[in-house]
Amino acid sequence: MAELHARLRAGLPDGAVLTDPDVTASYAHDMASFCTAGTPAAVVLPRTVEQVRHVMRTATALRVPVVPQGARTGLSGGANAAEGCVVLSLVKMDRILEIDPVDRIAVVEPGVVNAVLSRAVAERGLYYPPDPSSWETCTIGGNIGTASGGLCCVKYGVTAEYVLGLDVVLADGRLLRTGRRTAKGVAGYDLTRLFVGSEGSLGIVVGAVLALKPRPPVQLALAAEFPSTAAACEAVCAIMAAGHTPSLLELMDRTTVRAVNRLAHMGLPDSTEALLLCAFDTADPVADLAAVGELCTAAGATEVVPAADPAESELLLQARRLSLTALETIRPATMIDDVCVPRTKLAAMLDGTAAIAEKYRLTVGVCAHAGDGNTHPVVCFDPADEDESRRARESFDEIMALGLSLGGTITGEHGVGVLKKEWLARELGPVGVELQRGIKRTFDPLGLLNPGKLF
Amino acid sequence: MAELHARLRAGLPDGAVLTDPDVTASYAHDMASFCTAGTPAAVVLPRTVEQVRHVMRTATALRVPVVPQGARTGLSGGANAAEGCVVLSLVKMDRILEIDPVDRIAVVEPGVVNAVLSRAVAERGLYYPPDPSSWETCTIGGNIGTASGGLCCVKYGVTAEYVLGLDVVLADGRLLRTGRRTAKGVAGYDLTRLFVGSEGSLGIVVGAVLALKPRPPVQLALAAEFPSTAAACEAVCAIMAAGHTPSLLELMDRTTVRAVNRLAHMGLPDSTEALLLCAFDTADPVADLAAVGELCTAAGATEVVPAADPAESELLLQARRLSLTALETIRPATMIDDVCVPRTKLAAMLDGTAAIAEKYRLTVGVCAHAGDGNTHPVVCFDPADEDESRRARESFDEIMALGLSLGGTITGEHGVGVLKKEWLARELGPVGVELQRGIKRTFDPLGLLNPGKLF
Ligand SMILES: Cc1cc2nc3c(=O)[nH]c(=O)nc-3n(C[C@H](O)[C@H](O)[C@H](O)COP(=O)(O)OP(=O)(O)OC[C@H]3O[C@@H](n4cnc5c(N)ncnc54)[C@H](O)[C@@H]3O)c2cc1C
Ligand SMILES: Cc1cc2nc3c(=O)[nH]c(=O)nc-3n(C[C@H](O)[C@H](O)[C@H](O)COP(=O)(O)OP(=O)(O)OC[C@H]3O[C@@H](n4cnc5c(N)ncnc54)[C@H](O)[C@@H]3O)c2cc1C
Repeated sequence: MAELHARLRAGLPDGAVLTDPDVTASYAHDMASFCTAGTPAAVVLPRTVEQVRHVMRTATALRVPVVPQGARTGLSGGANAAEGCVVLSLVKMDRILEIDPVDRIAVVEPGVVNAVLSRAVAERGLYYPPDPSSWETCTIGGNIGTASGGLCCVKYGVTAEYVLGLDVVLADGRLLRTGRRTAKGVAGYDLTRLFVGSEGSLGIVVGAVLALKPRPPVQLALAAEFPSTAAACEAVCAIMAAGHTPSLLELMDRTTVRAVNRLAHMGLPDSTEALLLCAFDTADPVADLAAVGELCTAAGATEVVPAADPAESELLLQARRLSLTALETIRPATMIDDVCVPRTKLAAMLDGTAAIAEKYRLTVGVCAHAGDGNTHPVVCFDPADEDESRRARESFDEIMALGLSLGGTITGEHGVGVLKKEWLARELGPVGVELQRGIKRTFDPLGLLNPGKLF
Repeated sequence: MAELHARLRAGLPDGAVLTDPDVTASYAHDMASFCTAGTPAAVVLPRTVEQVRHVMRTATALRVPVVPQGARTGLSGGANAAEGCVVLSLVKMDRILEIDPVDRIAVVEPGVVNAVLSRAVAERGLYYPPDPSSWETCTIGGNIGTASGGLCCVKYGVTAEYVLGLDVVLADGRLLRTGRRTAKGVAGYDLTRLFVGSEGSLGIVVGAVLALKPRPPVQLALAAEFPSTAAACEAVCAIMAAGHTPSLLELMDRTTVRAVNRLAHMGLPDSTEALLLCAFDTADPVADLAAVGELCTAAGATEVVPAADPAESELLLQARRLSLTALETIRPATMIDDVCVPRTKLAAMLDGTAAIAEKYRLTVGVCAHAGDGNTHPVVCFDPADEDESRRARESFDEIMALGLSLGGTITGEHGVGVLKKEWLARELGPVGVELQRGIKRTFDPLGLLNPGKLF
């Protein structure tokens, strides 16, 4: 360990290598429950690409594992420390290097916070769509690591669709540039996409060229109350079948609505079984919302309330963004599922989840990026209660099994990390896992990058 | 060879194995010039996944290379036969298996022709955007193999963005399912994207889940005449900087305009140096076109002519789609470059291309997906004239060098194939090539799939 510390310090400025165990321990975990984490041997906070290269060269020379970290808001243990690892935190590499409104790109370092970038490009009349609810804290590097989604994905797609090119430091310290600054490009295999969602297991992202869109009109939202989640899901399907392109289509079940009201006194309708939020940033959002309102009513909505103005719309979004945090207050801990199913299977997914909650005698609140079929069943439990903990873990798994049986995936946007490793193997099957392992070996033959994650 | 033929026939129906050298020779080439091709040992035309697996098992057992083919409209030699190979043509696997307007997906076999799919989904109120100008003949499998673009990409993106999941037969005959049917999903490395644009070198695509959009309003176009390509490029930048989202933004230089007029008597303005076509499928295309018209005039357009109606707009698109074919009539042969540069560098790219044409005393007509910065300089020459051929090849290469020096890529959408192999290495650099080769080895350790392409 002394040698590791000394060699790291040789290429990093004062204060960039943390070794005090009390301090390093605070970097051991992301925000997921039930995920093991080791004790880091050191935490490094580089500010330049050369410093990152030095860290990786040192790690390779000494055969020490390295765990890249952004803001550690991850929900799958993907950023958890491995035993004796170097935690490589990219948060100090947080410069926006370039914003170009003609090429519609931003060039950034990985530690830039999502909301900081979003605001900076908005000032230039541009729009960086990916907006995980953690956007005020999570980093672009972490978003790329997990291939993050958010509320806007139903219209604008996920992080992957906005990453044009990457600068990556490989396990042995070599620098790789992938992709491009251009709108299109097909030169060779798409290594850029391979890194997006690779959870720090293939290389350290030290720079990114991101695609931007022109800033759309401010969105206008409505809230519709439904007597059942199934009816709300029917509305979702009707909205998509009718060819609408909402910029947001989110669902909160009764448990979620109540939790948000309790946390933030938002005055959401407490008595409804499911609240559907829909927004448009089109040329005529009022007309689009009116059409959607009718579809909601036809699907059984008891109440359809359009927001009076963009400010009221923003309040509804805030309520939705608070969902996970609010659900965390129900019991001492939560496990957050992230199953994504085909839209046509959304009602079956939610009904099935309710049945699982009942079977295991647990509270499972659900919020969902309903337009994408991406559900977040949040299993609430007390880790001090052994039996409840066991039931929580079992129900969490059964929800993934349900998702797979409905033709879905175990993770729509939060990634695999430690939490869903065995489930990844079930989803991919043996051939898929073998090929993925082969790719991992190509990039990281010594297995030093974020070991123990994914598979 | 006799053993190969016999073993292939053992698992394929009558007529699905072609061995007559006159017939198989006609499968040796795609549409690219200057690309070597070998003589196929056999051409197979399977109709089922099992038959494809049989072909690959046989090829692996006998160590025979396999070249997958769609409609052979490729422009880089990517589908050219290797010496003694089995040509695996997917054109008979041409069923559309499913179109779902709620999940907004189509499930197809690889041999489906792009235009056939586009029309089928349009009948259901849906839209499959990728539209290479060869759309009436090229196949979805070929589009996936090359990661094809088209006219709509400036607004809707390329093929890659519409491929959600794939069924792939691996080199040894095993079946791999990648990706998903859901709108989102991040389970493991993105193998789907790895296959898109891999030019048949990693596996045989035997099925695809494609994302669809709701059908947009019919687009309305305008044509603007410019006194120079630089002025037209200035207009392109102004249009993008102003935040417009045209559904088409194409450029034809004078050589192209004249060639199209000669071929099809379209009555395009012959005397202009550059014709810019712009279209909108927005809620109010007339207003958007008016705004764009003003930007064109400000950039120096001598004439701005909005189409009277959608039919006239469609005529303008047809003119653009004919460009490559029309340029082919200038001299006996062509080499088609596909350089994509950042939009801000488009004018430099076109001026530089004109200088290269002059230096080599050749006609180089240019059409471009201008909104994407994707140019197609078409080098016209006579292969019977040795000196002219040499000059053609040199100018073709110099155009790629220019593109790279401007921060661009050697290929925006046509792929690498045989034609641009050495240039791929220059663009990727040694680290990139090494990793790409590593991936190739993971998927195809015996090197049987489309050997001699890419690198
Ligand atoms: C309240 C709350 C709401 C959330 N809402 C959403 C949501 O709506 N949508 C969504 O998708 N997620 C959501 N998340 C999950 C989380 O915020 C995202 O996964 C986010 O992208 C993580 O970013 P981070 O900077 O915190 O990364 P971390 O958690 O630090 O890391 C995430 C992964 O990326 C890797 N990584 C980080 N930086 C790099 C780098 N530079 N190079 C290589 N690998 C790297 C790590 O090793 C790890 O595997 C939410 C989380 C919370 C707590
Ligand atoms: C007049 C004309 C206009 C064109 N316009 C455009 C345009 O606007 N945009 C554009 O991008 N391209 C354009 N092209 C190029 C070409 O049409 C595209 O590259 C198209 O995608 C090729 O499809 P194909 O079916 O002909 O494939 P092929 O040429 O047969 O094959 C292309 C590649 O894909 C591989 N392949 C084919 N099928 C499979 C499969 N099932 N599994 C694995 N690999 C497979 C082949 O091995 C090869 O490497 C044009 C070509 C012409 C002749």
